[in-house]
This record gives sequence, C-alpha cells and structure tokens, in this order.
Amino acid sequence: MITKPRGTVDILGKKMRELVALKLIIRNIMDLYNFEEIETPIFESLDLFKRAVGEETDIVSKEMFTFEDKKGRQLALRPEGTAPTVRMVLEERLFIPENLPLKMFYFGPMFRYERPQNGRQRQFTQFGVEVYGSNEYVTDVETISLSVEILKAIGITDLSCHINYLVSGDERKKYVEDLKNALSDKPLCEDCKVRFEKNPLRVLDCKIDGDKFGDVVNMKDYLSVEDQEKFDAILASLKQIGIDCVVDKLLVRGLDYYTGVVFEIKSHDKNLGAQSTMLGGGRYNKLVEELGGPSIPAVGFAIGLERVLLALESVEDLAEPKSVDAFIFPIGKKAEQASILVSTILRSAGISCDLNHLNKNLKSAFKLIERINAKNIIIIGDEELKNNSVTIKNQETKTEEKVSFDKIVDYFEK
Amino acid sequence: MITKPRGTVDILGKKMRELVALKLIIRNIMDLYNFEEIETPIFESLDLFKRAVGEETDIVSKEMFTFEDKKGRQLALRPEGTAPTVRMVLEERLFIPENLPLKMFYFGPMFRYERPQNGRQRQFTQFGVEVYGSNEYVTDVETISLSVEILKAIGITDLSCHINYLVSGDERKKYVEDLKNALSDKPLCEDCKVRFEKNPLRVLDCKIDGDKFGDVVNMKDYLSVEDQEKFDAILASLKQIGIDCVVDKLLVRGLDYYTGVVFEIKSHDKNLGAQSTMLGGGRYNKLVEELGGPSIPAVGFAIGLERVLLALESVEDLAEPKSVDAFIFPIGKKAEQASILVSTILRSAGISCDLNHLNKNLKSAFKLIERINAKNIIIIGDEELKNNSVTIKNQETKTEEKVSFDKIVDYFEK
Repeated sequence: MITKPRGTVDILGKKMRELVALKLIIRNIMDLYNFEEIETPIFESLDLFKRAVGEETDIVSKEMFTFEDKKGRQLALRPEGTAPTVRMVLEERLFIPENLPLKMFYFGPMFRYERPQNGRQRQFTQFGVEVYGSNEYVTDVETISLSVEILKAIGITDLSCHINYLVSGDERKKYVEDLKNALSDKPLCEDCKVRFEKNPLRVLDCKIDGDKFGDVVNMKDYLSVEDQEKFDAILASLKQIGIDCVVDKLLVRGLDYYTGVVFEIKSHDKNLGAQSTMLGGGRYNKLVEELGGPSIPAVGFAIGLERVLLALESVEDLAEPKSVDAFIFPIGKKAEQASILVSTILRSAGISCDLNHLNKNLKSAFKLIERINAKNIIIIGDEELKNNSVTIKNQETKTEEKVSFDKIVDYFEK
Repeated sequence: MITKPRGTVDILGKKMRELVALKLIIRNIMDLYNFEEIETPIFESLDLFKRAVGEETDIVSKEMFTFEDKKGRQLALRPEGTAPTVRMVLEERLFIPENLPLKMFYFGPMFRYERPQNGRQRQFTQFGVEVYGSNEYVTDVETISLSVEILKAIGITDLSCHINYLVSGDERKKYVEDLKNALSDKPLCEDCKVRFEKNPLRVLDCKIDGDKFGDVVNMKDYLSVEDQEKFDAILASLKQIGIDCVVDKLLVRGLDYYTGVVFEIKSHDKNLGAQSTMLGGGRYNKLVEELGGPSIPAVGFAIGLERVLLALESVEDLAEPKSVDAFIFPIGKKAEQASILVSTILRSAGISCDLNHLNKNLKSAFKLIERINAKNIIIIGDEELKNNSVTIKNQETKTEEKVSFDKIVDYFEK
C-alpha cells in the first residue's frame, strides 16, 4: 500500500473542524487589529532561506526539503514564513512610505526535515504575523498583546509571556566579546562549539547546554540608553494592559535575524510537557536591508497550529459536532427522483440535508441518520407523492407531521 | 533581488480577501450538502501519481515537481487532489461499510510544471470534491448539482453543463476497437500518435486535433442497457432541478482514471475566452481498487480557484472593502500609552481599531486614516487625559463627541 510521506499527516474529522474553527477565530481577531491576510508560494529560491535564516542554522543546514526545477534552479519548500514575506515586500515594492505600516498575517504549511514526534511534523501549519515600517514601542506592545489575545481567544488562558531585548550595534559587539570570554572555559556540546564561532548568542538557547548559562554576562547590562528606555516602556505598557512579563536573559530565539525585543508565550498546561512554548517572535530590523531592500524595521511572531490543537485537547472543544437538518428517505423509484428535488429546494433555502445515497433500507438508514446527526427525517412514500407532500419526523421531539411540498421550507424556518 | 519562483504568485489585498470570501461561501454550501472537509499533505510518493493518474499523462510525464528526501524516497508535489484522497481513504481505512458514503472536500495548493500564462500557474489553488461508496445516479446528480450551485453562489450564473458517459467493461473494449479503426486513417499530432496506442480515448480531447473527430464513432451507441438507463436518469433528474445538460460525445477528460459519467461546467463570459471551462469531474469507480483497495465506486470534481477569481473580475466584487471602526490618535507621550489601553478595551469588545504606529502628525495621519478606511477617529490629548475621556470624530457624519473612558465601548455599540 502507498502511504503518506513520513512526518506528514492527513487531517479530517474533528481535527479538521477544529483547524477551520481556529482559523476563523484568528481571522476575526486579525480584523480587530487591522491586519491584512497574505499568501506566498509553498516553495522559494533556496538562496532566500540561506540568506535570511542563516546557513549555519539547523533549519537551513539540516532541515530543508530542497529540489531543482527542470532549468536547474535551486528551490526549497519553505521552512518558515518570515523570509518569504520579506521577499514579497521587496518584490511587490510594498515598502514605499505611503503603504507603511504594513500589518500582515498568513496561514500555511511549512516544512522541516526533522525527526517526527508528538507535536512535531515534517509538514506543519503555521500562522504568522509580520509588521513592517514601525520601530515604535507601541508596535511591539500591540504585536505581543495580539499574540496573547489569540491564545486566550482559543481557550489557552494559563500562560506566561517570556521576554528579552537583544543588544544591537556597538553594544552588541562588546556583549558578544564578553560572552565569548565568559563561555570560553565552559564545556560546550558539539553544535555549540560551531555556534560559539559563528553566532555565540545562539549558544544561550541550546537545548542541551542552555540551562548551564544562568550565570553568564547579562544582556540587559549592555543595552544602550534608548534601548533600555524602550524595553522599559514595552514592559510598563504590557503591564498596564494586564500582561505581566518574565524577563528571560537566555531567550535569544533560534534564528539569526532577530534584533531588539524577542518573546515567547508559554502554556502551563501540564499535559504539554516539553512542548509548552506556544509561539515565539520578535523584532528583525535588519532583515529587509540584508535581503537587498531599504532599511525597514519589522516585528512579528509565528504559531504552529498543530501544537495549539494539541494543547486544546485538554482544554475545550473548539468546533461544534457536525450535524445536518434533514435526511431524506424515499420509498421507491419515483420517490427517489422526488428526494433530489426536495434536497434542491431545501439547500436553496439554506437548510442542510442529505440523501439516501446507498439506497439503504430503513433499518440501515437509521444508523446513517445517527452517524450524520440528522435532526429530522423526511419520508417520501407513494401516499405522500400522491398528495404532493412529505412526512417529517423530528428526531428530537419524536413528533411527526405531514407537510405539503410547498411548505417544507416553512417547516424548517419556523 | 531574490524573486518568487516562476509560475507562482503572491496573493494579497483584494485578491486575498476574495479568496477568503470564496472559501467561506463554498464551505457554507458544503455544509448544506453534508460534506466533510479534509486536508492531505502537500507532497506524496511519486509512485502514487504514476499509478493513479497514469505514467503517460502529460501531468505525470512532463508536469511534476519531483524530488528525493534524504533517504532517497521519490516524492512529488501533488499535481491534483484525487489520488491523495484515495491514498488517505485506504491508509486510514475509511472505506469500511459503516463509514459510507464518504462525502469529502478539500482546498489546497496543487503544482504543475507548465508554461505560465494568464489563468495557469505552476502553483494554483484547487477546491476538490470526492464521494466514495455510492454508485447510484442520485449521487451523480447531487455531485453535478453541487458543482453548478457553487458557481452560481459565487456569481457565475451564465453557464452550461457539458456531460458524457464513458463506456466500461466489454462495451469499452468494442468501442476502443472501433474507435481505433475510425481514427486509423486520420492525421494525428505527435502526442496523439502515442495516445492512440496507450489510451485512444484521450485522442478525443486533444487540444490540437480534438475538433476533427466530430464524425467518429459515438460512445453513446456502445453503452450497456444499465449504463444507458443510468445516463438517462441522470439527465432527467438534472433537468427536473433546472440543470439542462449538453451531451458532448468528445468529452473524455484529461486523466486516465475516469469511468461512467464525466462533466464540465463552462462559463459563457466572453472575457474568459479559451479559459471558459470552470470545473470538471466525473466517476472513477476503478481507482480505489487499482491503488490496492477494495472495489469502491467514486465520483468527484475539482475547481481551480484562481480561474474562478479571474472569471469574477468581470462579474462582481466578492469581498467587502476593508475598513476599521476607529483610528486612535494620541497627542504626546502619556496619551500614547493611553492609546494602547483604549485599543485593548475596544478590541476586547469586538470593535476594530488601529494605532498611530508611525507617530505621524495629524496631517499625515489623515492620509493613513483614509487608506485604512477608519470610520471614526479617537483623539486623546492632554485635556482629554485630565478628564479620563477621549474625543471621537465620526468620519461619516463629521460630528464629534466627548466620551469618557468607560463609555467608549457604548459609543460604538449604539
């Protein structure tokens, strides 16, 4: 038997309904925050991710699905959504001043060639938010507040906001120097030895060694006065709107492109265990310029929707159980044709129904009626046909009623 | 500059809003017809498409994006949605009798390496419908009726349903023999010479030669009595619910897997020209078995959503223009913090608003207010702050009103 590729899933049933409900809830919130939805292609030039995400990152060096098109162009299934969005902003020239700020979001599959495990798939669905053109603290606060509101709206309320502020410019150089000195006598894992040379900040969020570095130099001490003020304003403003933050000096995020504020929202649901980080994001003011564009500040975050659905399992049901207003049961060939006509009339009036597709007898049909959760049964028999009418059985009240053809819609609308 | 891959598009603005609106309309109709949404992976085993779609088809032989994973497994970006759905039905064992009929639909990107042109992209968005387990004419009628209703619901009303019924079994062998004889003295294009040997039916829908075959043997004459009766019942029932069909003896559809009824819905909008086929589908009763499953009858159709959006350009606007209930304009640093608080209060109450992210002065802010289509401006100045109030200017009525902090939500709800 041909099976689905390793690390991918089929989505159906309750899970699919929850995914649709999740997107609907998020879209409504994005409207309240005046964001615009976009969609970029599933694959991009390999070069885009090498330049934007960084060649030394695990994502680019180990976890990409790459291929060549028939002209030999190097392509990659997108492993994340920020780089494609920047590419779009540049290519469609959205960065002109009269367009700013750009407040955008997207849903879509992302791809990472990782060892599949619970909550981690090779194809996963991401929801991402990106804001271009503003470097104001107001924008940072709105972005973080948005991320918290989304999680709350979908029922994940027991959460905490972890935040840090990455130094930049000359201060960053000084900090990196001191960090390297402080780390030089620590035993590092193999990956961290490479990170130590190429991007020492990333040693801090190493999954193996990270927790050993609690006593290394504190990034906060290196911030410029402006950055310090901004960080304080962000924290104060978040507190004012009810979001208490935990400042986490080891939080640097896995990607190379972050500058300024970075944050992660963690759920405290015990069932989630190690998968407790629900979303993460931050500022990336240099990325647009690094990809060949003008200097445009940016901030964003992303959520893996599968992880959210996993978290929701122990919280609440997002989607209503499926049901249908009526099942139409015809008796005989002539009634069968009439059943199609009745279904057409009902559906035109916005009443959902289903037909006896498999020509089941009444006993087997009852199992089907139960499975599809039909609220009413419409019976069309010889006698009914003679009088241009149907018999409708209400499954809830267990009452039945004779209704003429031209009154069926009224029956359901009352 | 790094650009998007050839034949792909970025979707944003009005087009994106229309795509979202389109999916919403379709989902509502699918509910009325009691269908269930599913999602399969973006890529599958290459082998699946070779076996399901056919190695000699253009799709598989010329138009696939294929690649290997790190273990050397041959994969392909899916060129269509039916084969993955059958794979899912088999792998998840959805075909057991108590699950039938399975009525499923999906939205998602599909990929074909074709020469890009207007209405044809290398990545396109498909909406697909598949029904498993019923071979009744009722199911054919429901499926065709559904396809027409969807197009009507989104505003494409000037359309016609082209239909044909493919012979099967012994009758098919006889028909193919006679067809080959009839075609043997016709001049065929290079592709058709190959098709003539491997699957002569497909010569009939050749884009180059197709119209030369109006006088070849008529498939209808070869149908078995049962098939003829079924075809007649389908046509009669469609007529009864207001769908007049054009029987088109050259209609065989591009894929190898069709058996029984096949159909295409064409739009007569003159702006569409050669792209007038809006959707196509048909019965494929052998495919589940050919892919290693039990004998399960199936019928379905697919729509390319980009083509639908193209058709809609000349018909109507699907999506409302974007707007926001309020723009909040703070004067001074203290007011800026207050503006964040006000935005939080409004959004919690379901009122959409935006902030002065770029710290614009009132003159530049007015351009932004116009662009984002804000219905009200909320001004927070020193005097307002002193009184714990704001000034709200209604952009439509041009009136303004002082409103205390705790009454802002009331202002918008009245």
